[in-house]
Amino acid sequence: MILALAGGVGGAKLASGLARVLPPEALTLVVNTGDDFEHLGLHVSPDLDTVMYNLAGRHNRETGWGVAGETWHFMTALEQLGGDTWFKLGDRDLAVHVERTRRLRAGETLSAVTASLALRFCIAPRLAPMSDDVVRTIVHTDKGELEFQDYFVRRRCEPVVRRLEYRGAAQAAPSRVLREALADPRLRAVVICPSNPYLSVAPMLALPTVRASLGALDVPVIVVSPIIGGRALKGPAAKLMSELGHTPSALTVAEFYRDVMDTLVIDTEDESLVSVLADLGVSCQVTSTIMRNDADQEGLARQLLNRIGA
Amino acid sequence: MILALAGGVGGAKLASGLARVLPPEALTLVVNTGDDFEHLGLHVSPDLDTVMYNLAGRHNRETGWGVAGETWHFMTALEQLGGDTWFKLGDRDLAVHVERTRRLRAGETLSAVTASLALRFCIAPRLAPMSDDVVRTIVHTDKGELEFQDYFVRRRCEPVVRRLEYRGAAQAAPSRVLREALADPRLRAVVICPSNPYLSVAPMLALPTVRASLGALDVPVIVVSPIIGGRALKGPAAKLMSELGHTPSALTVAEFYRDVMDTLVIDTEDESLVSVLADLGVSCQVTSTIMRNDADQEGLARQLLNRIGA
Repeated sequence: MILALAGGVGGAKLASGLARVLPPEALTLVVNTGDDFEHLGLHVSPDLDTVMYNLAGRHNRETGWGVAGETWHFMTALEQLGGDTWFKLGDRDLAVHVERTRRLRAGETLSAVTASLALRFCIAPRLAPMSDDVVRTIVHTDKGELEFQDYFVRRRCEPVVRRLEYRGAAQAAPSRVLREALADPRLRAVVICPSNPYLSVAPMLALPTVRASLGALDVPVIVVSPIIGGRALKGPAAKLMSELGHTPSALTVAEFYRDVMDTLVIDTEDESLVSVLADLGVSCQVTSTIMRNDADQEGLARQLLNRIGA
Repeated sequence: MILALAGGVGGAKLASGLARVLPPEALTLVVNTGDDFEHLGLHVSPDLDTVMYNLAGRHNRETGWGVAGETWHFMTALEQLGGDTWFKLGDRDLAVHVERTRRLRAGETLSAVTASLALRFCIAPRLAPMSDDVVRTIVHTDKGELEFQDYFVRRRCEPVVRRLEYRGAAQAAPSRVLREALADPRLRAVVICPSNPYLSVAPMLALPTVRASLGALDVPVIVVSPIIGGRALKGPAAKLMSELGHTPSALTVAEFYRDVMDTLVIDTEDESLVSVLADLGVSCQVTSTIMRNDADQEGLARQLLNRIGA
């Protein structure tokens, strides 16, 4: 069994690849909820939705978020009423938020709601949030303390980040699926998908026992670098690294995951870093990590599985 | 100034007629909220919405509820997720419910939210709920105690009604707009629109002081009968009358409003009732009350205004 930890778009792509090359019972996907938030009275779980829509093949390939073929009648009507429109909620997407919110308010856990939605979307592997408790990534910036989506969507990551805080993480319990996967004797490897280390993966590592459990595993923990040639394919990972005082590079990724990682997967573009990484004691796998289409996703997934002999 | 009390479709039609023949400052519309309910975590005010959409010319003329040219992508997606779909929420309509709910949760009154929505829909006359407090019409039936929309929409008014209860009405305050209109020295008449007496108007009359205030007014209170030839044009008014032990007839309407009413407006089809009503001390106005189009709405509104010399 493979446990994959994923955040947004990059994570969802590799998760999709893994889901297509592994039998369903051999894959557990655990997703960041640090960027969940309440919007218009609805509980929105952007990373869970991105992973869910990708796995269901319902994702919008242009935007990276939301549902393909979406319509925006709700949003247009809301705008005419003077409502908040900075976070786009499509007509179909909205059904997920309304239904999830209703069930959370009725007392179901986010894990239970996620499993139920996954079933409705015909998603076969186990899909779970990192926690059923509230963890909120807070971005401390030159414009003050910002809620994550305020920073990420409304302000387009423009403020300069000084510090990240995973509020609630120290008091939150890892979800049962995450705890059980980490303790499962069938576990063959953990894959940390190419998601933003600070925004997508760090909230998971900040949960009690998770970072230590990953470090103590006797199966490989494989990190796919989201930084290629000093740039992030999507999102603010490289900008964030700079603002937090690091060089945007796979080397910084290696440093970030050092205590938990066995193998760093880097793109062929970064092949020149292999010897530097080796000097730092980091074992590398070099392959094409850019996932432009389904074949790329499956190809990368197969490379990782080959590495661990699965 | 005319105060019009309205419930659903019939009420909304006459309200629209009045709005088109009166200057905005000369009309105050107060709407039933006894059929408001929480659905999918949203506060839904069906009668306020029907009146609002009608006055804005945005109403769906086929269904009598909702917005013209509506789409149903949200509803279809919700159905695929296994959500509740017995109460239809269109993509555009949903924006009203989400925005209203958000603002109510933020502490605004229903009156304030209604006024703000009315402004956005370019509705000129004053539009207000009967109360900012929670009043819920409960239908006691042969199938047990039912919430109003459960009875009305989900069960299509099929259960046999034994008793109606306006839960919370005795403790609810009439809205400021309603109180001020009833006390306004400029008030020339009150029009009770052709809405269901038991379901749409009775909740308003059940609010403290409202029934007594109407009875004590020295300006005419004009009731437009929603029953024509023993039938209701729309909805369960006639069925309800029978189940509550009355003959479906304008005579029953007259009986229901006896203590508050000065004039009963009946349809030409019911002209034969004039003498019976006169024997009961009820003053009648006979005219065509069926409103098939805008011209009919305006025609009926003008008839009423002529009667009071406005």
